[in-house]
Amino acid sequence: MSLLRKDPIVGRWTIIATERARRPAAFVDPQSTVTERKDCSYCQDIDAPGVYESHGVKVINSSSPILDDSKPFERRGHGLYDVCHSYGSHEIVVETREHVANMADLSLDQIKTVMQTYALRMQTHSKNPFIEYVLAYKNYGVAAGSRNIGHARSQIMAVPVLPMRVKDKISGAQKYFDYHERCLFCDMVSQEIKNKERVVVENEHFVVIAPFASRFPFETWILPKGHHCDFVEGIVDSADSLAAIMKDILLRFKIGLNDPAYNYMIQSSPVKNPSSFKENYHWHIEVMPRLTRVAGFERGTGFYTCPIPPEMSASFLREVDIHART
Amino acid sequence: MSLLRKDPIVGRWTIIATERARRPAAFVDPQSTVTERKDCSYCQDIDAPGVYESHGVKVINSSSPILDDSKPFERRGHGLYDVCHSYGSHEIVVETREHVANMADLSLDQIKTVMQTYALRMQTHSKNPFIEYVLAYKNYGVAAGSRNIGHARSQIMAVPVLPMRVKDKISGAQKYFDYHERCLFCDMVSQEIKNKERVVVENEHFVVIAPFASRFPFETWILPKGHHCDFVEGIVDSADSLAAIMKDILLRFKIGLNDPAYNYMIQSSPVKNPSSFKENYHWHIEVMPRLTRVAGFERGTGFYTCPIPPEMSASFLREVDIHART
Repeated sequence: MSLLRKDPIVGRWTIIATERARRPAAFVDPQSTVTERKDCSYCQDIDAPGVYESHGVKVINSSSPILDDSKPFERRGHGLYDVCHSYGSHEIVVETREHVANMADLSLDQIKTVMQTYALRMQTHSKNPFIEYVLAYKNYGVAAGSRNIGHARSQIMAVPVLPMRVKDKISGAQKYFDYHERCLFCDMVSQEIKNKERVVVENEHFVVIAPFASRFPFETWILPKGHHCDFVEGIVDSADSLAAIMKDILLRFKIGLNDPAYNYMIQSSPVKNPSSFKENYHWHIEVMPRLTRVAGFERGTGFYTCPIPPEMSASFLREVDIHART
Repeated sequence: MSLLRKDPIVGRWTIIATERARRPAAFVDPQSTVTERKDCSYCQDIDAPGVYESHGVKVINSSSPILDDSKPFERRGHGLYDVCHSYGSHEIVVETREHVANMADLSLDQIKTVMQTYALRMQTHSKNPFIEYVLAYKNYGVAAGSRNIGHARSQIMAVPVLPMRVKDKISGAQKYFDYHERCLFCDMVSQEIKNKERVVVENEHFVVIAPFASRFPFETWILPKGHHCDFVEGIVDSADSLAAIMKDILLRFKIGLNDPAYNYMIQSSPVKNPSSFKENYHWHIEVMPRLTRVAGFERGTGFYTCPIPPEMSASFLREVDIHART
């Protein structure tokens, strides 16, 4: 069991591992590891039943969950602090039956099934009245926060509070909408496509850009051209197009940047009160290689420094020949 | 010259390097390096004049500044985006004339001079009408964002906009003050000292705690017992005490965690309109080893997961025998 604790100053929540906590010594010099097929627990359990399965994609409960629904969700005080049982759900999406590490190497059909699986699990979790937000994301490689490289998988977290960063995005988009009566993201899509210099690639339904105020080298966002606040509705008619552009950008990272660690995070609207986000929020995916470390300046201010301009990142990624290896 | 660009969604600023941008290939597999005395540029230039000098501590302008005041500060639009010249100041504090890497190994007098130097430079920068915030901070080790380990130094950044994270802290502290008519930080200090389990060490003027909602293993905050919003005023009568507790906590990291990479960030109030922060804000220092990587869940939500409880971090750090090597 873990706890959810709230920072009393900025209101940020942290999940604190308690019973299954690792020993302090375990944090000193952790080594990166590559798991071979013979040692891969996902391969060993490939025929074990999951929570959900479709075309070789399987959802299982995390074997070391940091969120669980074994106890009811109740917030309580602890002196001036706020704490609650870390209620929620922590699932692993095993993306393939094969021992393939990088999503970039999966087929388009397989990637499409993974995306549709995220949507189905989001729908299921959103029916739980205690769940406020569902995040589907991937950590690939040790620098991206994964314990090892081996079998392609991603994670789905369903949490009982609205995370700070989601609140910030919604509140920024809302301010723009209040003033302009237009969606900020739709305007960004138009401006970026017209301007071209930060566009990495586009297809029928999506455009990948290096964002104007990129925090990291080669940071990219997959922006849907059509307006939907919600990933689940958003991909109904565009899952093929999303799989194609996801594979494209991941191949550009793999080939152009020498198989770097990366994260992607699906930024959908909160699952409660969808009507209040319908006009002003616009789902999207942040995809970013992990090549630099965040330093004290960023930590101390929330002010990032990006050592190369996003226009240069975009131009570099545009020029990667992804057909050389596909 | 660099640019300051604002994320239109959450309002976060990024400094984008432009002319001196590194080549994309430079981000692939950067290696950590240790600089020996014979190759150390700080040792070679130790007698060159600085911007400020006192008792072996020297402030110099960064040789590759990401902020500079060569052009006036002017915000402008770029379609729907905001951008400005990255106006400001980027200084390096060379903490000793000797080739010593870790501040933990400096004398108390030397550390005290470093802290007083931060205060003096903050005072100077705060007189510039275009400067809104000054951050003094340290990156020690590659995992903390430093390019190499070699000569003890820290950095001072003076920026022309109020960073997002500073705004968040002030707004949280303000809400608490509005309701309770008491300082949130003063209440935290009382509760933590009474409760004891998250206290690592305390002395006459300061207490070091592992914060209740710690984001990282062994994250600590140095909290002043006396109420001041501002670092400069805050250390007038307590610089000896601050040097002692800073050395103490850095030695606990060095001995207990095998010389880890770490950051510290001095969290003082904004430099303009000090009277509006006087009652509700309380300066402090965040000090944290860098033992884990931030993963997709944290990036996607601002929701952290800390793999060990802060009570266990505090107890581990309390038990480190710092006199074994001092």
